[in-house]
Amino acid sequence: MHASRTVFFVSDGTGITAETLGHSLLSQFESTQFRQTRIPFVDSEEKAQECLKRLAEARERDGVRPIVISTLVRADIAALFHDADAVVLNFFEAFIAPLEAELGCKSSHTVGRSHGSVTSKGYLARIEAINFTLAHDDGITDQGLDQADVILVGVSRSGKTPTSLYLALQFGLKVANYPLIPEDFERHQLPDGLNKYRNKLFGLTISADRLSQIRQERRPDSRYASLKNCTWEIEAAQGLMRRENIRWLDSTSKSIEEIAATLMQTVGLDKLTF
Amino acid sequence: MHASRTVFFVSDGTGITAETLGHSLLSQFESTQFRQTRIPFVDSEEKAQECLKRLAEARERDGVRPIVISTLVRADIAALFHDADAVVLNFFEAFIAPLEAELGCKSSHTVGRSHGSVTSKGYLARIEAINFTLAHDDGITDQGLDQADVILVGVSRSGKTPTSLYLALQFGLKVANYPLIPEDFERHQLPDGLNKYRNKLFGLTISADRLSQIRQERRPDSRYASLKNCTWEIEAAQGLMRRENIRWLDSTSKSIEEIAATLMQTVGLDKLTF
Repeated sequence: MHASRTVFFVSDGTGITAETLGHSLLSQFESTQFRQTRIPFVDSEEKAQECLKRLAEARERDGVRPIVISTLVRADIAALFHDADAVVLNFFEAFIAPLEAELGCKSSHTVGRSHGSVTSKGYLARIEAINFTLAHDDGITDQGLDQADVILVGVSRSGKTPTSLYLALQFGLKVANYPLIPEDFERHQLPDGLNKYRNKLFGLTISADRLSQIRQERRPDSRYASLKNCTWEIEAAQGLMRRENIRWLDSTSKSIEEIAATLMQTVGLDKLTF
Repeated sequence: MHASRTVFFVSDGTGITAETLGHSLLSQFESTQFRQTRIPFVDSEEKAQECLKRLAEARERDGVRPIVISTLVRADIAALFHDADAVVLNFFEAFIAPLEAELGCKSSHTVGRSHGSVTSKGYLARIEAINFTLAHDDGITDQGLDQADVILVGVSRSGKTPTSLYLALQFGLKVANYPLIPEDFERHQLPDGLNKYRNKLFGLTISADRLSQIRQERRPDSRYASLKNCTWEIEAAQGLMRRENIRWLDSTSKSIEEIAATLMQTVGLDKLTF
């Protein structure tokens, strides 16, 4: 059993990149308890001094050095952390120098560039994608499907909506999603209007146990949530997808990030716009 | 003018962390053109060899070394990249060793931990937050607002919905959002039902020019989109928020990440659940 450690994600921007990095690193140390704090917008000497005070307090309280995972871009601000009694892992300090050497030019050391300008093409595409995806959630409409980058299909509660929103927000993809419902299984056909977009279809499936559990929370003790009905729906949906030659994956033990990355790789949508 | 560079985001997981890192770094080199490719799930020697082949092809084609930004966790796979004719920036290789030294224990070198297990409390909270946020978009219902972490208010198209979804997906926050409409301004009152959740309210505002431009795309040449009406709505909304003592920010030149980070810092919602 290890002592609890305080970790600070420090950035002159939002701190979201520092936090993402930090989670990745810390998840590799399961036996340690981490107390995590994000400190965004550290863009002046004054704010850096405040931040250093919090590091010193944590050092005093915990009896061990705090860990700082930082994406401070400004060299003068970053330098203020060099003498702190803390483990300071600065992402920019580690990686900017080798990149500058290789590219033969200096970096701009400009704060707040990570997420792109709000007037950039990539950013506007993300906002447009969110609007499209919300307007095409759960089969609301089959208008404008020609603009969709991908159309997700699957039984109710197989993970279509969170996956669609994540793809839109993170990658600027326009995603429509359609539930596969008992009526489709009885007709042995895809929902109307999807046939001509066959190359955009991607299926999500899930184990019957997990589906029943999820539906149970929504509608306890319903036929909809029963294991028997879930098993039937999933078998019928998988049969339909197999017959229609639709690519699909099992979402049971996959996070939305994993579903998204697998889907983009399968469908060839790794367009990396921003 | 610098030559175009090929950049690979290589990971044994989704590659999303590597890509986030990469965007942060590359955004500091504005004068260089980057051709970016994510290569996820490089979790076997065979896949690493395929990946190395793609690096060599890029080297050949571009006439300069490609850049690899990687989050490969497995040391044996990461080592295969050491002899590549490329600039390899491996995030884990750079930062795991100092952390192991400080924490006095070995990291688990386990692939695919970044986004949390799908049965972890943090992950389930995110999914629940997405469902809550969708069900409470655009003032659909005032049921269950006691469970909201924050309630966004602002005129139509001020950025409430994308911000709400981002907070839910990224941070597992339950967010409701309410439009402020002409009727509210005429009554000089907040929408019904919001009064008792005053401490959860947060406002978004936007410049009249930008709002008019955004609305113009939705409903060209409408009264709704006219600069005159946008100016009036924004002044009325800001007046209302000022009178009601609601904290707010101007979203005009802020990305959803910046809006989210500022909001969480202001409202004190930096709970960092996962």
